[in-house]
Amino acid sequence: MKVYGRNVLKEILENDVSVKMVYFSNSKSRDLEKLIESVKQRNMPYTIANDKILERISNEKKHQGVVIDIGKFEYKDELIIEEITNPFIVILDQIQDPHNFGAIIRTSVATGVDAIVIPKNNSVKVTPAVVKVSVGTIFKTNIVQVTNLSRFIEKIKKLGVWVYGAAMEGKAYHKVDLKKPVALVLGNEGSGIRENVKNKCDDLISIPMKNKVESLNVSVSAGILLYEVFRKNEDINS
Amino acid sequence: MKVYGRNVLKEILENDVSVKMVYFSNSKSRDLEKLIESVKQRNMPYTIANDKILERISNEKKHQGVVIDIGKFEYKDELIIEEITNPFIVILDQIQDPHNFGAIIRTSVATGVDAIVIPKNNSVKVTPAVVKVSVGTIFKTNIVQVTNLSRFIEKIKKLGVWVYGAAMEGKAYHKVDLKKPVALVLGNEGSGIRENVKNKCDDLISIPMKNKVESLNVSVSAGILLYEVFRKNEDINS
Repeated sequence: MKVYGRNVLKEILENDVSVKMVYFSNSKSRDLEKLIESVKQRNMPYTIANDKILERISNEKKHQGVVIDIGKFEYKDELIIEEITNPFIVILDQIQDPHNFGAIIRTSVATGVDAIVIPKNNSVKVTPAVVKVSVGTIFKTNIVQVTNLSRFIEKIKKLGVWVYGAAMEGKAYHKVDLKKPVALVLGNEGSGIRENVKNKCDDLISIPMKNKVESLNVSVSAGILLYEVFRKNEDINS
Repeated sequence: MKVYGRNVLKEILENDVSVKMVYFSNSKSRDLEKLIESVKQRNMPYTIANDKILERISNEKKHQGVVIDIGKFEYKDELIIEEITNPFIVILDQIQDPHNFGAIIRTSVATGVDAIVIPKNNSVKVTPAVVKVSVGTIFKTNIVQVTNLSRFIEKIKKLGVWVYGAAMEGKAYHKVDLKKPVALVLGNEGSGIRENVKNKCDDLISIPMKNKVESLNVSVSAGILLYEVFRKNEDINS
């Protein structure tokens, strides 16, 4: 996969992601020269080309002079959950929009989520656009792909994880315990969480509204709920 | 302006927005027929055409069989603020992305924001894409355009409104009063709030993070902060 953007490369460098090739633009820029220097220091393979070539490789005009071939994106196996003590998990049930996925990854990293779980089918996947919207923070977390979400939820419940699903009919989120080990399920942009997945949740939570709107944007809902979990588990009052 | 989408039309109907013409697709659909019926009942001008024509009029493939010509979008005058008792205001300092603007409008309506204020220059404007992302909720609130944000902030401070700016160096948001009358300023996606605008704020607030990321997506930050204002002002604990 060819990802792009300066902040994306910075995160790749910071998180020691293995790369096949870094392509830099031959347009002179202070910021680019610094990045080339960092790539050199780590003995990463790199090459310099003109902007048109970078555009062709990345299929993107706004590459900011940096395209990185990271090979195949490595999803983590669901077994990783068993290795985490007191996990904080986000489960996305058939989210479709790369912008939502990228923004949720960003908030997940900020709030200390240990793994983001997506189903193999009918779901947005990790694409260059997702990596870009996540501003490279995707390399700071674990993205897990599972075949069957319901079965995965059953499994983590047996590990002691309490699973909350976000749904209109749920309890107001601020009145709910939300203590770790915890998982938060968010549903599809149009139709929410599927019934069979919803039925597996321990509890449903909702975001109250003053004026009724159809729903909030799913990345906004995720932000509000993830921060509530964060506040109820971390000492951020000192 | 030609806006599109079924939920957008529903909000237009619900909020008695005046329209110049509603264009419906001639493709048969239960949902469309219901909408045509509602439009008829209100004596709104409408016409039926094929999907290609709707696409050409709206410049959008995903029009869902409904395009609405609402004429020129009417921004409100800033004088409107003086008529609101105990206002809750959102100020967007040079936001650029229509998706962010639309999502912020949606959350603003849900949390009872009275007005969303944008500067005339260097800012996203109300476009059909913004209306679509807001799912038509834009017709439930007041969008105010001002020439000079700093001067506007000075003015509302004189009215007793406490102005908070969202900035990394601010106090943790959950430890701040946030009582109405209140305004929340959010900055540009890349560079945040401009210095001269920041200087006018009464106080700066920030969103703490477990793992440092560059920043959250601005519509996500808006969601977290708007819900905090909502919680600190409304009785949602009953």
